Amino acid sequence: MRSRMIAVPVRKIDGAGESPEQDLLAVEEPLEIRVNGQNVAITMRTPGNDEELAAGFLFSEGILRAPSELVSLASAAANTIDLAVGPNVDLERLQRHFYMSSSCGVCGKASIDAIELTACPLLDRTRPAVARETIHRLPEKLRARQAVFDRTGGLHAAALFDASGELLEIREDVGRHNAVDKLIGAMFLRNAVPLQQHLLLVSGRASFELVQKAAMGGIGVLAAVGAPSSLAVEVALRFGMTLCGFVRDGRFNVYSGAWRVGG
Amino acid sequence: MRSRMIAVPVRKIDGAGESPEQDLLAVEEPLEIRVNGQNVAITMRTPGNDEELAAGFLFSEGILRAPSELVSLASAAANTIDLAVGPNVDLERLQRHFYMSSSCGVCGKASIDAIELTACPLLDRTRPAVARETIHRLPEKLRARQAVFDRTGGLHAAALFDASGELLEIREDVGRHNAVDKLIGAMFLRNAVPLQQHLLLVSGRASFELVQKAAMGGIGVLAAVGAPSSLAVEVALRFGMTLCGFVRDGRFNVYSGAWRVGG
Repeated sequence: MRSRMIAVPVRKIDGAGESPEQDLLAVEEPLEIRVNGQNVAITMRTPGNDEELAAGFLFSEGILRAPSELVSLASAAANTIDLAVGPNVDLERLQRHFYMSSSCGVCGKASIDAIELTACPLLDRTRPAVARETIHRLPEKLRARQAVFDRTGGLHAAALFDASGELLEIREDVGRHNAVDKLIGAMFLRNAVPLQQHLLLVSGRASFELVQKAAMGGIGVLAAVGAPSSLAVEVALRFGMTLCGFVRDGRFNVYSGAWRVGG
Repeated sequence: MRSRMIAVPVRKIDGAGESPEQDLLAVEEPLEIRVNGQNVAITMRTPGNDEELAAGFLFSEGILRAPSELVSLASAAANTIDLAVGPNVDLERLQRHFYMSSSCGVCGKASIDAIELTACPLLDRTRPAVARETIHRLPEKLRARQAVFDRTGGLHAAALFDASGELLEIREDVGRHNAVDKLIGAMFLRNAVPLQQHLLLVSGRASFELVQKAAMGGIGVLAAVGAPSSLAVEVALRFGMTLCGFVRDGRFNVYSGAWRVGG
């Protein structure tokens, strides 16, 4: 079984002090689900139990109804799972029932290359320069604004700050990818991207998808209140983005681009 | 603007006591994004800032590069947003870049009807009967097992219990929909669905998608450590599912199907 966790080097910032340490991340990789040779879905998942994931996904979409409909279920290559199903399975339902969503975005190595080649602006490696204290204070500023809106406990927030830590815009949504799309979309419509002097704070975890969206927006510093995934860190390193995780209670970890974070 | 929050009646369970109250939920509804008349994506979102969401989504996918490429951007009907773009926008990229994922699932009213009509087993209204104390104890049992696996802070968990609260299976993933797919997929492959005597606990929030997957699995009781969305409650009511939210610290709220929860 492929590993579900990976150890990475990290700078732990506690108040004004810092130390190099190791941190364990949840592995995030794309899984391509193929039925009778046809790619039907890609999902960003943690490796392991891929057969169950593919079967459960197709069952919950109403495609598979009984295990007897499965002729075979196997992984022929890394990050792919192949199902063969009998003739009674209505594959037309795949087309009728599957909706595209933004929650996967572009997936995996090939698509990371695509970001570089096509539309992603190069991040400015010198900007913004951010003080540790500025990052420490982002969550309280977010909460102060979010408290007005979120009395449900069910909304994710994405907030844009300038390099001095002033909160410029906040958007909330049940989907964290939507909150980020709304925020970057607002700036896009004002013709204000790339956002090279800005910090983005997200209220939850940082997945590949959020790093990809931030990179497309030209944002050099992404801070998350929760944990990053392995692929979030990998992509941030590749694009020279500063990625901070567990930003809360006067501490945070820097997973990439530590040069933007000053004393 | 459509409302982002909605008040619903709820039974608040605190220890052995209970009281009828109101709770505020984040609104979750599908948004259909259309470009030049063609449906290109559906995302489950909280209403508001839909123009920004559509623009930000298409920008982050590399389809839109500048606001000048937008000829028009408007909402012609509820929960739809229409973009008209100029001839220089490469709509072919839509096909190459958008991946289907399970995170949206089937969306909105039409698809809720589809669940009923096609593949969703009717939930058994009498089973399982669950004691309050059993529900109070689900999170600690999950944590006891999850602590072995998740030292990253980045994994969602889904756990299956029998009606007496014994933990049967647990699956973890960076995506909560994947964790549920793995869990239900494992039981499906054992020919053990519908899961009419089981409880499902999820470590985070309960969205429409998780209720839909539980309903497909025949699961009568879904408990979430976090908040449910409006559509999660709506669908649970429709299918007669017992939906509990904020299950933690000796308290929980029952949003639907309270008849399965005994003293």
